[in-house]
Amino acid sequence: MEKGRKIVNGADAALPDFTTDRFPHLERGDFAVLSDEHLRFFEDLLGKENVVTDPVKVAAHNIDWDRHARGQGNVVLKPATTQQVTDVLAFCNAERLAVTPQGGNTGLVWGSVPVFDEIILSTQRLNEILSFDEVSGVLTCQSGCILGDLDAYVRKRGFIVPLDLGAKGKCHIGGNLSTNAGGVRLVRYGSLHGSVLGVEAVRADGTVIRLMNTLRKDNSGFHLKHMFIGSEGTLGVITQVAIQCSVAPAAEHVLFLGVPSFSRVVDAFRAARQALGETMSACEMMDGECMRVVVDKLGYRNPLQDDHPFYVLVETNGSDAQHDREKIAKLLEAVRSSGVATDGVLASSEAEMRTLWETRLRVGKGLWADGCLYTFDISVPLRMYYDIVPEMTMRLREAGRHVTRVCGFGHMGDSNLHLAVTSPSFDSELLEWMEEFVYEWTSLRSGSVAAEHGVGFKKNRFLHLSKTAPALSLMKDLKDLMDPKGILNPYKVLPLGLTGKSC
Amino acid sequence: MEKGRKIVNGADAALPDFTTDRFPHLERGDFAVLSDEHLRFFEDLLGKENVVTDPVKVAAHNIDWDRHARGQGNVVLKPATTQQVTDVLAFCNAERLAVTPQGGNTGLVWGSVPVFDEIILSTQRLNEILSFDEVSGVLTCQSGCILGDLDAYVRKRGFIVPLDLGAKGKCHIGGNLSTNAGGVRLVRYGSLHGSVLGVEAVRADGTVIRLMNTLRKDNSGFHLKHMFIGSEGTLGVITQVAIQCSVAPAAEHVLFLGVPSFSRVVDAFRAARQALGETMSACEMMDGECMRVVVDKLGYRNPLQDDHPFYVLVETNGSDAQHDREKIAKLLEAVRSSGVATDGVLASSEAEMRTLWETRLRVGKGLWADGCLYTFDISVPLRMYYDIVPEMTMRLREAGRHVTRVCGFGHMGDSNLHLAVTSPSFDSELLEWMEEFVYEWTSLRSGSVAAEHGVGFKKNRFLHLSKTAPALSLMKDLKDLMDPKGILNPYKVLPLGLTGKSC
Repeated sequence: MEKGRKIVNGADAALPDFTTDRFPHLERGDFAVLSDEHLRFFEDLLGKENVVTDPVKVAAHNIDWDRHARGQGNVVLKPATTQQVTDVLAFCNAERLAVTPQGGNTGLVWGSVPVFDEIILSTQRLNEILSFDEVSGVLTCQSGCILGDLDAYVRKRGFIVPLDLGAKGKCHIGGNLSTNAGGVRLVRYGSLHGSVLGVEAVRADGTVIRLMNTLRKDNSGFHLKHMFIGSEGTLGVITQVAIQCSVAPAAEHVLFLGVPSFSRVVDAFRAARQALGETMSACEMMDGECMRVVVDKLGYRNPLQDDHPFYVLVETNGSDAQHDREKIAKLLEAVRSSGVATDGVLASSEAEMRTLWETRLRVGKGLWADGCLYTFDISVPLRMYYDIVPEMTMRLREAGRHVTRVCGFGHMGDSNLHLAVTSPSFDSELLEWMEEFVYEWTSLRSGSVAAEHGVGFKKNRFLHLSKTAPALSLMKDLKDLMDPKGILNPYKVLPLGLTGKSC
Repeated sequence: MEKGRKIVNGADAALPDFTTDRFPHLERGDFAVLSDEHLRFFEDLLGKENVVTDPVKVAAHNIDWDRHARGQGNVVLKPATTQQVTDVLAFCNAERLAVTPQGGNTGLVWGSVPVFDEIILSTQRLNEILSFDEVSGVLTCQSGCILGDLDAYVRKRGFIVPLDLGAKGKCHIGGNLSTNAGGVRLVRYGSLHGSVLGVEAVRADGTVIRLMNTLRKDNSGFHLKHMFIGSEGTLGVITQVAIQCSVAPAAEHVLFLGVPSFSRVVDAFRAARQALGETMSACEMMDGECMRVVVDKLGYRNPLQDDHPFYVLVETNGSDAQHDREKIAKLLEAVRSSGVATDGVLASSEAEMRTLWETRLRVGKGLWADGCLYTFDISVPLRMYYDIVPEMTMRLREAGRHVTRVCGFGHMGDSNLHLAVTSPSFDSELLEWMEEFVYEWTSLRSGSVAAEHGVGFKKNRFLHLSKTAPALSLMKDLKDLMDPKGILNPYKVLPLGLTGKSC
């Protein structure tokens, strides 16, 4: 979801607090401090222009996308080849210099910015498309390619990258892999663990693990590439990627429904899946409160005549416009006649489709207008997907805590809810109280406390709610194996046993 | 592919040689020898009936599916709960007893039978379906459930297990995960790395790693489950599985084409993918030699009027019979009018569909009738997919080696070729010569020497042809981390630096 970039926790603060100020008990790891000699080594290796130390330029790399976290890195390195990444890491490992790998810096969990003074290793110049096979649809590229650029490249050749998200114009494919990005069409194209065929990554000591398989079937030994997908740069730096692209859909359709209750929302999802089958590419929901926000705060028009308790957006990507239109029109008729939906509209032009999508996707932006927005990215089984919204409302009331509104929206096709609460201004104590409640509630329902945004530095203290002690211990063992000195993205993903002021 | 169970390397030998006789230089690992005290411990733990020592009953667990390998295990253990697996492994690890985990024992690379006297840990009694969520389509079960049983169970509820293979009536879902089984519909439903949501596995020391996530989006920490998918029981024993099932198709269609050249086969694949889009569920090929075998040896009728150099089978799984039929009929017309296919037939009944599938799937059975069949399971980029068939023919002729025939068939939608050579009787020297050639040829083309059947004990000496030295070294490190005493499925997957007589 998008957020207003300028409104920071309800205030117009120019710069967020340093992350270390918010977590005063966090100790800096036993790492070396960057010296002039270190910088000379980097300049000799990469060229002066690729070793950025100008504080103004470095600042943007220290602040996360939501402007909630701010690190104190002093240098940004921009290698352009795997060999340069190897040389940088081998040196940093030998010198015990901590490193934060950074792609497009569009993450939402403070994973791609330093916490202390880590060196920022940008993949910005690792931006070459290496090959595209028009028969198999397999694309290989360096990890710093921008997702949207890759998609544009393969679309010209009749394919699409099987991943789509709001930040596609800025995020890097390497960052997408590192965070196992989900996005709006996972329900159709599946997870990156399925569509990524090959990875090249560099270990903390500079060793290149080249696993650039480009074939759909490869059972030659352990499936090592998955170690680097979703480990947020803590086990290695991804330098190259091979990804299976999907055939571009010949036709797209969008249906927008008004639904009387949440149980009917689930019915609508089931009906859509049944009727649309393999063509369904997204199934999103938002509640009536979200619609009010979009209408009142952003001036959008409700696409339906009346207000409804819930809204469901269904999209199809198919290979035959007429067939797909027939299927989705039949679905609309069925859900209306059975009372699953009270009203519905089927987009009849590309502009209408865009408007329907925007109604859903601008919810976040609208909510920021309330002053301060707190969002919780969780997965929960669909039958209890929405329960936390009324429960949070009740708990807040019982506790005498005042907020502006509580609402829910998200990728219901993937059981991924964004619970949102707004208040006039930022209240760290309120946020902490809500975090405790939300993540424990989620854990009790076998949900995930980190659905699609990852863990980073924001959620590692809640990780024990989604992972057992032996699993956490195995994570620690793997980290020690891959990066014995802990130089790669320290303070991230793995639990620190830390509590502190939250943002 | 199926093979005649009774014809063993062209001879009717009652029992295959011991694997250790074929590889006389292989040394037994530093493991304890099973004692009566060990047996008493197991009997106390599992009950006498679940500790099988009767040599006749144990024999079947020592011999692999193709009857090419024969181990010397003396006991089969049949735990029924995760706790029992934990207790068995903790004991074996403490006592340094080697263990071979075994599912349905349908593997083709000697991975699920002992090499020496390893204890056989059968998942046969871990056969409970735990839950099925009819909204999300997520099935959870123990690892010893038979794939076909699971599929039947979810089909009654409108879903299918997103994996289909010839051995579905016997193979266990845990074995499917351990070997990352591919099958005929991977082109549509993707790899198990994408569709498996959760895994529970027990480490060599008995620690349970419970990762039974049942939600499509979960980025809470390292994605550990993938360590157990495709590592063939060397890193842990899978005890439970959560898998995302797909909606059952409302309609199925099968098209069978006669194609004049291999470049036209590639054109047919591209045309099918374009025309059928999301509905294409399989794209298989066989050459003219394969058709002759099926016709001459098994008495099948060529579904087309004339002989053709190549045949392509295309299947659709869709949600609307009429739409799918229109698409596939349009495809048939297009490939015929453009000369991509010289002839083609679209099945008009379920019986016809079955016959078309059998024509393709019985190739292996037909080939065994020549006496002895050698099959090589490789992945190669599609544009050079078939090159090895004429090249192998030429090489054999140049080397003055006599064989009955060389032909090719396989899952071309996944770039997965089964190269087949037959001879009147088994010739180990010929096989070794061919293995060297095939796997080096594959490696030079960035293919995989182990596409869908895995590595087991059969291919670990060729693994360096598909994995770099740092990747092999990382595999070794992971093995040491997960199983420091090396008790889990020893001699498998990881290279042994071994050469010896092949089967």
